[in-house]
Amino acid sequence: MQTVLMGVDIGGTKCAVALGTPEGEIVDRLQMPTEPETGPDAIMARLTDLARRLAGTSSCAPDGIGISCGGPLDTGTGIVYSPPNLPGWEGIPVRSMFEEAFPGVRVVIENDANATALAEWTWGAGRGTRHMVYLTQGTGIGGGLILDGRLYRGANDLAGEVGHQTILPEGPLCGCGKRGCLEALASGPSIARLARESLHYGRGRRLVQAAGGRPADITAKHVVEVAREGDPFACSILAEAGTYMGIGLANIIQILNPERIVLGTIAVHAGGLILEPIRKAVEERAWARARAVCEIVPAALGDRAQDLAGIALVAPTASSDTR
Amino acid sequence: MQTVLMGVDIGGTKCAVALGTPEGEIVDRLQMPTEPETGPDAIMARLTDLARRLAGTSSCAPDGIGISCGGPLDTGTGIVYSPPNLPGWEGIPVRSMFEEAFPGVRVVIENDANATALAEWTWGAGRGTRHMVYLTQGTGIGGGLILDGRLYRGANDLAGEVGHQTILPEGPLCGCGKRGCLEALASGPSIARLARESLHYGRGRRLVQAAGGRPADITAKHVVEVAREGDPFACSILAEAGTYMGIGLANIIQILNPERIVLGTIAVHAGGLILEPIRKAVEERAWARARAVCEIVPAALGDRAQDLAGIALVAPTASSDTR
Repeated sequence: MQTVLMGVDIGGTKCAVALGTPEGEIVDRLQMPTEPETGPDAIMARLTDLARRLAGTSSCAPDGIGISCGGPLDTGTGIVYSPPNLPGWEGIPVRSMFEEAFPGVRVVIENDANATALAEWTWGAGRGTRHMVYLTQGTGIGGGLILDGRLYRGANDLAGEVGHQTILPEGPLCGCGKRGCLEALASGPSIARLARESLHYGRGRRLVQAAGGRPADITAKHVVEVAREGDPFACSILAEAGTYMGIGLANIIQILNPERIVLGTIAVHAGGLILEPIRKAVEERAWARARAVCEIVPAALGDRAQDLAGIALVAPTASSDTR
Repeated sequence: MQTVLMGVDIGGTKCAVALGTPEGEIVDRLQMPTEPETGPDAIMARLTDLARRLAGTSSCAPDGIGISCGGPLDTGTGIVYSPPNLPGWEGIPVRSMFEEAFPGVRVVIENDANATALAEWTWGAGRGTRHMVYLTQGTGIGGGLILDGRLYRGANDLAGEVGHQTILPEGPLCGCGKRGCLEALASGPSIARLARESLHYGRGRRLVQAAGGRPADITAKHVVEVAREGDPFACSILAEAGTYMGIGLANIIQILNPERIVLGTIAVHAGGLILEPIRKAVEERAWARARAVCEIVPAALGDRAQDLAGIALVAPTASSDTR
């Protein structure tokens, strides 16, 4: 009988359940809006219903369920502690709720950055490596570490928070309350802020145009869009963010000496416009011997990453090593 | 028959061989000046002779030989590549040389920071942890990582170079050629430089006195000495270096979420004078949940660390996990 795995993605805007194979093929999926204002109990009831409905369309119950959710969460107890995108989810036993909905099925929960790292390592841009670091550069900068061929979680599931290393001790305030974090310098919102703050002496006209003439509405997406059309101002904004990102990656290379760094989100959309300044900064800031063995590449799973993140947690190749 | 292990320490000033037990007791040792100007072949001939002499005094041949040496080196091939403290040692097969001197005996080589990390983890301040980071803060700032209960080496034996993360992108030039590395801000020579550069408006009189009246002769040792006597100027210098060190440790905590950070050299001698500013900076720069599970403590092995570093590499408890 064929193995079928279920991946659950719990996000602030939408939740999804997917059925996939150990080879990383998605065979079916369903999604729903999260509607966070309805509260964790109602959301979890709708989500487990959705999962049961999806499983019902399949010929057999899933062989394992992997849940990818914003952290902080405790992978040991399966309890979620108020992720920034799910306000009010303080101490919600998400794993137990799925165990009750699917008696006898193995359920694993992991924070979304770690789960996506595992998916990219199993089927995507990190395949075949022993030491891989995955970073998202989106609304925030999160990360997941595959070290010595397995997911590294640290003492209490907080390893991989690479976006909150200090890059500029006196730099801008980060959403986390600290100053000069990588996330405060190179995340999507930080790129947008940098662009808005640099709009003087008539610079950035095309960017403002792209944002409907309203500078306050500029997003990182606009910056990437206009940079791809060759606008030098937008390119310089990406170059500055890329330089900070490169310093952060160089620190990771000095500390962890990985074989590959996989970059999600902005690197996937902006390509060389951000990867080149990143690689240039890494060249200046990391030792040649460590740099020589470390590729920096964009993530490869695209839209499938969120569905595969949960599935990767229970896929036989990866899961045998993860706990 | 009792297990006897040999530890070999190859340094720029002296080399030593020690015999010890799997419990970390040193039973005998011999040392010699390195005299680096005599070149690697002559030094290695004298060192293997010294080791044979020490083994001869014991009732039996060692059950394993662990060599601790400055990196870069390749733990797979056992070849050393010009460590900064051993100029001219380019491509010296140090492990093979010991294997020839002791046929049939297992020989392991490791860079000194990793070997010392393993010793502190096995018998010293890191005992009982699963995730430990060791840092020396001496002439340079080196480190060794114990992750998931074993030494983590990275893709090509360069993991743990925590002293060469960027702390101030526009900071002072580091010996490694990069700018603003932790080592350029908080190593012994950096502390001495900071003290010398801060000697204006009549500040630092006691420190200059301690250095025989010659500001150019001030060392980190003088700074610690005078700070211990309560001199506010020397204390402020240690506080500044400790702040940079704390930013570096906070980055490590964000990335690796360790249970314990063990600090060698200056932290051992200066105690709270450097540990307090370090802990204060960590409090400002690392997340509370990760900080709460991470102790920051001085190293515990003292003078025995260098002898035990080599022995730890072949001690049964540690070595079973290290490769």
